Amino acid sequence: MTDQLIPIQWKDGELVLLDQTTLPNEIRYDSYQTIERVWDAIVTMKVRGAPAIGVSAAYGLYLGVKDAPENYYDKFFEILKEKSDYLATSRPTAVNLFWALERMEKKAKSLAHLEVSEIKTELLQEAIAIHQEDEEINRLIGENLLTLLSDGMGILTHCNAGALATTKYGTATSPMYLAKEKGWDIKVYADETRPRLQGSTLTALELHRAGIDVTVITDNMAAMVMSQGKIQAVIVGCDRVAANGDVANKIGTMGVAILAKNFNIPFYVAAPTPTIDLRTPTGKEIPIEERGEEEVTNRFGVPTAPKGVKVYNPAFDVTPNEFITAIVTEQGIVQAPYEENLQKLLKGAPDAITK
Amino acid sequence: MTDQLIPIQWKDGELVLLDQTTLPNEIRYDSYQTIERVWDAIVTMKVRGAPAIGVSAAYGLYLGVKDAPENYYDKFFEILKEKSDYLATSRPTAVNLFWALERMEKKAKSLAHLEVSEIKTELLQEAIAIHQEDEEINRLIGENLLTLLSDGMGILTHCNAGALATTKYGTATSPMYLAKEKGWDIKVYADETRPRLQGSTLTALELHRAGIDVTVITDNMAAMVMSQGKIQAVIVGCDRVAANGDVANKIGTMGVAILAKNFNIPFYVAAPTPTIDLRTPTGKEIPIEERGEEEVTNRFGVPTAPKGVKVYNPAFDVTPNEFITAIVTEQGIVQAPYEENLQKLLKGAPDAITK
Repeated sequence: MTDQLIPIQWKDGELVLLDQTTLPNEIRYDSYQTIERVWDAIVTMKVRGAPAIGVSAAYGLYLGVKDAPENYYDKFFEILKEKSDYLATSRPTAVNLFWALERMEKKAKSLAHLEVSEIKTELLQEAIAIHQEDEEINRLIGENLLTLLSDGMGILTHCNAGALATTKYGTATSPMYLAKEKGWDIKVYADETRPRLQGSTLTALELHRAGIDVTVITDNMAAMVMSQGKIQAVIVGCDRVAANGDVANKIGTMGVAILAKNFNIPFYVAAPTPTIDLRTPTGKEIPIEERGEEEVTNRFGVPTAPKGVKVYNPAFDVTPNEFITAIVTEQGIVQAPYEENLQKLLKGAPDAITK
Repeated sequence: MTDQLIPIQWKDGELVLLDQTTLPNEIRYDSYQTIERVWDAIVTMKVRGAPAIGVSAAYGLYLGVKDAPENYYDKFFEILKEKSDYLATSRPTAVNLFWALERMEKKAKSLAHLEVSEIKTELLQEAIAIHQEDEEINRLIGENLLTLLSDGMGILTHCNAGALATTKYGTATSPMYLAKEKGWDIKVYADETRPRLQGSTLTALELHRAGIDVTVITDNMAAMVMSQGKIQAVIVGCDRVAANGDVANKIGTMGVAILAKNFNIPFYVAAPTPTIDLRTPTGKEIPIEERGEEEVTNRFGVPTAPKGVKVYNPAFDVTPNEFITAIVTEQGIVQAPYEENLQKLLKGAPDAITK
C-alpha cells in the first residue's frame, strides 16, 4: 500500500497543492480557485521547487482569466497580460515561473482567431500540458537511471530532488519510484542535509509515504554506510550543469561524490536538460550563494552554537566532473568527456547518449 | 583578552566544576564541598569526558573522607573504601573513574604507617597530581602537534576533543591554545558534528571564549572549505587506537579523513597513550555503539524527520590507518608503519618517535 505525496494536482476545475510549509509534521492539501490564492501560495512557499512553481503559475493564470468577459479578444488578452504580470511578482527570481507564464501568453496569442471561450479551454489544456511534460521529463530521467541500477541495490541520496521539488517522480528520486513500481527491493539512505534538512524532512517523507525503504542518516554518516557495503549507487539532483560537466548542487554534494569515488561507488546526477548551461564553461563560474548564519546556529528554535561565533554557510557546492560517473537527462545518459558529450546531447546527436 | 573555560578547578578547599549541561547558552561554575554532590554532578553529566570524570572522582573521594574520624587507620580505610564504592556507582561504564578511585585507594594503603590526618593531606595531593598529570599529557600532545603546524594555518576539527572533554588544553585543541599563547594567527573550522553538535556547542564555545578565531560549519561543508584552500591540517581526537593504527572516533571522522587525503591535507589524530590499545588488532574489532533514533529525528525539541521513518545512528566510525598522516601522543609523534611504531612507542623505544 503506497500513499505517494503529490505536490500538484488539477482536480474538478481546482488546483490542489500540498502545503509544503507544514511538512513533515502535517500532510495537508489545499484547493485553490483563484489566482490571488495561487499568488499567495507561491509567496508563502506553500509550493516550492522551480518546476512546481512554473506549473502552479500556469494553472493560476488560467484561474485568473477563466471568468473574464468573452466579448472581445483584445480585452481578454489585456486581462491575461495583467494577470500574468501580477503572478510574476510572486517570486521574482524563479526562471520557471516566467517561462510558464510566457508560454501561456504565447498560446493565447497564437489562438487569436478563436472564440475567447475556446481560448480559455485551450489555456487550461496548455497548463495541463506543462504539468504533464514535467512529469514526463522526470519519468524519462527515472527510466534512464533505472538502466544503471538493479534489484536489491542500496542507493544514497542528498537533499531533496524528489517529487516534492517537482510535480511527480522527482529527478533523483524518479528511479526509486519506478523501481518500486517494478517490485524491486531497493534500500534508500537519505542524508538529512544540514542546515535546512531537506533530506530528512522531504526526501525521507515522500519515499516513506510511497512505501519505499528509506533510512535517514546525518550527513557525516555517509562514509560509514559506504564503508559497510550498504551503498551501490549515489544519485543526486542538480541546480546547474556547466559545459564541462561540473555540477552545482546543494552543499555537501561534493563531499558525497569524493567519498563515493573513494569507495568505487558510481555517482549519478539527475539533470533535466534545461539545467545544462553551456554558457557556463566550468563550475568556477557558478556563483555560490551564502545564506544567513541562523540556519546553522538557530535552525530549531534553540541556539545550536554560542552567540557571536563566526559561521560559514554556503548553500551550494560544485562537484568537479572527475567525480561524476554519469549525468542522466530525459534525453539520455551522458558520460565523460562531458564537454564534448553534453554538446552532442543538446544538439540531439544520438551518439552522445551512451545507453 | 581571553577567557578560557576551565572545566575543573580546585580552589580554597572546594572543587569548582563548569556545568556542561547548560552550554553553550549559559556559562555557570558551581562549587562542590561534599562527595554526594560530586556523585550527583557525574550522574547528571554536569561533568563529562573520561579524564574529567576521573579527576572529579579523585577530588570527590577526598571530600568524602576529609572529615572522617582520625583515631584508627583501619576504620578510616573502611570509610574510604565505602565512599569509593559509592562514587563508582555514578557512571558504571567510565574506565577513568575506576582507575582514579583505585589509585586513591592504593595511595592510602601505601601510607598506612602515617597518621590519618597526614594521609588525608596526601590524598588531596594525589588528586591534585592526577589532575596535573592530565593537564601535562594534553600540554605535551599540543607541543608535539605544534611542531607539525605553522603560523597562519587553517585547521579543521571534528567533534570536541577539547578542554571541555578533559581538564585543560584538550587533546585535539591543545595545539590551538598553545598557538594562541605563541601569538600565532590560526583559523579553526569546527564541524558542528551531528547529531549531538559537540562541535558547534562545545568546541566553538571554548575556542571562541579563549579568543581563538573559530568558524562553525555544518559537517557537509568540510569538503567545500578544503577545496577552497582554507584548511592546511585536520586534527581530531580519538576514543581508541587499534594496534594497526586504525582509529575509532566520533561519527564523521572517517569521512573527514577521506576528504583530507583527496585534497592532500595532513590528517592528525591526538591520542594520549592510554587510548592506544594493542590488544585490539585492527579497527574491525572495535564495537560501534548505535544510539537512539531521537538524536537524529528530534534533537531540538521539534521533529526533524517524519514519524516512523527508519534511522541509522552509529555514534562512532573507524578511520583506516591509510588515511592518517600521524598519531600524536604525549610521548611523541607516530607515523606509518603504525603496527611497528605504536609498539615501539609503548615500549619507550625512542626510534618510534619521528620528531
